[in-house]
Amino acid sequence: MTYYENCNVVVIGSGPAGLTSCIYLSRARLDPILLAGVNWGGQLMRTSIIENYPGFPNGIDGPSLIKNMLDQAINFGTKVYYENAKSISMLNENLFEVYTENTKFISRSVLIATGAEPKTLDVPGEKEFWGKGVSTCATCDGALFKNKYVVVVGGGDSAMEEALFLSKFATKVTIIHRREIFKASMIMQEKVNSNAKIEKIMNSEILEIVGKNKVEGVKIKNKNNNEIAYLACDGVFLAIGHKPITSFLNGIVETTEEGYILSHNNVFTSREGIFVAGDVEDNKYRQAITAAGNGCKAALEIEKWLRMKYNI
Amino acid sequence: MTYYENCNVVVIGSGPAGLTSCIYLSRARLDPILLAGVNWGGQLMRTSIIENYPGFPNGIDGPSLIKNMLDQAINFGTKVYYENAKSISMLNENLFEVYTENTKFISRSVLIATGAEPKTLDVPGEKEFWGKGVSTCATCDGALFKNKYVVVVGGGDSAMEEALFLSKFATKVTIIHRREIFKASMIMQEKVNSNAKIEKIMNSEILEIVGKNKVEGVKIKNKNNNEIAYLACDGVFLAIGHKPITSFLNGIVETTEEGYILSHNNVFTSREGIFVAGDVEDNKYRQAITAAGNGCKAALEIEKWLRMKYNI
Repeated sequence: MTYYENCNVVVIGSGPAGLTSCIYLSRARLDPILLAGVNWGGQLMRTSIIENYPGFPNGIDGPSLIKNMLDQAINFGTKVYYENAKSISMLNENLFEVYTENTKFISRSVLIATGAEPKTLDVPGEKEFWGKGVSTCATCDGALFKNKYVVVVGGGDSAMEEALFLSKFATKVTIIHRREIFKASMIMQEKVNSNAKIEKIMNSEILEIVGKNKVEGVKIKNKNNNEIAYLACDGVFLAIGHKPITSFLNGIVETTEEGYILSHNNVFTSREGIFVAGDVEDNKYRQAITAAGNGCKAALEIEKWLRMKYNI
Repeated sequence: MTYYENCNVVVIGSGPAGLTSCIYLSRARLDPILLAGVNWGGQLMRTSIIENYPGFPNGIDGPSLIKNMLDQAINFGTKVYYENAKSISMLNENLFEVYTENTKFISRSVLIATGAEPKTLDVPGEKEFWGKGVSTCATCDGALFKNKYVVVVGGGDSAMEEALFLSKFATKVTIIHRREIFKASMIMQEKVNSNAKIEKIMNSEILEIVGKNKVEGVKIKNKNNNEIAYLACDGVFLAIGHKPITSFLNGIVETTEEGYILSHNNVFTSREGIFVAGDVEDNKYRQAITAAGNGCKAALEIEKWLRMKYNI
């Protein structure tokens, strides 16, 4: 195993939060180490055109935006390791040890920007049509479904929100939920019920997402009578939650029950010297631009913290 | 005077915060009205190359970035008025009236994103060399002064921070302050005192910023003996504070003593229906990317608020 000592900061995660922090940290001459991960780039790598990242009037595809940010961080001197962080521990009261499979980094501070993964159905067609009709973000992709027919999967507040938002664009929205009743708040259910464009199919689950080059329909099973039906549609929005990537932290900072890192002001964790940014902390806005903004904030706070503590 | 009624939201201000909110609000089909201002675009219009806005590995100049964002907002249907907001009042308990010189808008909600202006010295050369050596943001422009000699004007914590940051790049940094002592915290003063690259000139003020095509030096006057000296330098960083643009609000929302809008979670003001984003609220980070991130957050909260209150 290789050892690196005297790091000022190790940034874990290479979505917009981690990359923005590296742009700022390297430009401030703090020589950040970026653990980008084996599958680097985060959720944007699996999206097609992004229309709402400010600065690109004709949109930009996810992988290109990430590549631009990565190049920008590297241009300023960020050192990138395409390895996954396996664990973090305290070497002593001032220094952290961050392990990947092959390397150990000893660092004064750590920024966790590992993001979150949308929960998936794990049915045939889901992976295949990801970004080709299958989406996990109505805010991001809803506008691409004008006058189309879409399905929303889920039963919580966010499923209701996705359905209501999509009803502004789509001709029809069908919510498919595996249980008898929604767990969403009554007020959201009432809004859904009073929306003429939204239909509900309860007690049902998707068996398969069907299509040729993009989503064309879903096969669903009624769990009460086991009947199987086919529903033609142009899009499938999964609103069954996200899973923050925090298991490798092993409790070194406080998290919510679901694993989201608890923060003060979006960037400070419960442990001095460990900072956070992006979807691993934010389970509310989850946009590329909000993650980038918080990555910047975290970098500026880390910079200040290192200046006060180590005079650098 | 022309009247516009039934607006969902009037966005005041056309820097990164206001423009990002318009991208999101118009893409969500809420038909935002943008009061861009007579001198539209905000602080970025007076900067040259921006190296740290994520997504542009070779940098982008300020006016181009703003133009891109504006085009993006217009592409999605934002209606732009190049007029200044003069006042806001309540028409009734649900609706706001926003006045410009020629137009009155009646709107369900308002987003204030008017930004802040750096305080200036008002001396010859300052306007002329703005962005050509004169700067108000070391984080933004410090990296452009590698191995150069720069001057920082001010005596508070932020002047100390700017000087310390600049000392990573510049050969020498001179802080010029008009008083006998700094008002910065002792710990920041100590850090400045122990930094071999930083010099101080107290009791002195800049009379003129001198140069041909860019900053080449400053004329300073010692206020004790009225002696005038010339100091050759490549950059002048003003760290004498910012002035948020809120006087037109006439107390409709709560502000700090300096006029910054008080917020909850960066986007909610003290009055329901009025939201805020960007430097008019944030006197700490003040970056294009953080303002854009908060503009997005504000848009998503306005969207949610309109959905809950008006079923749209």
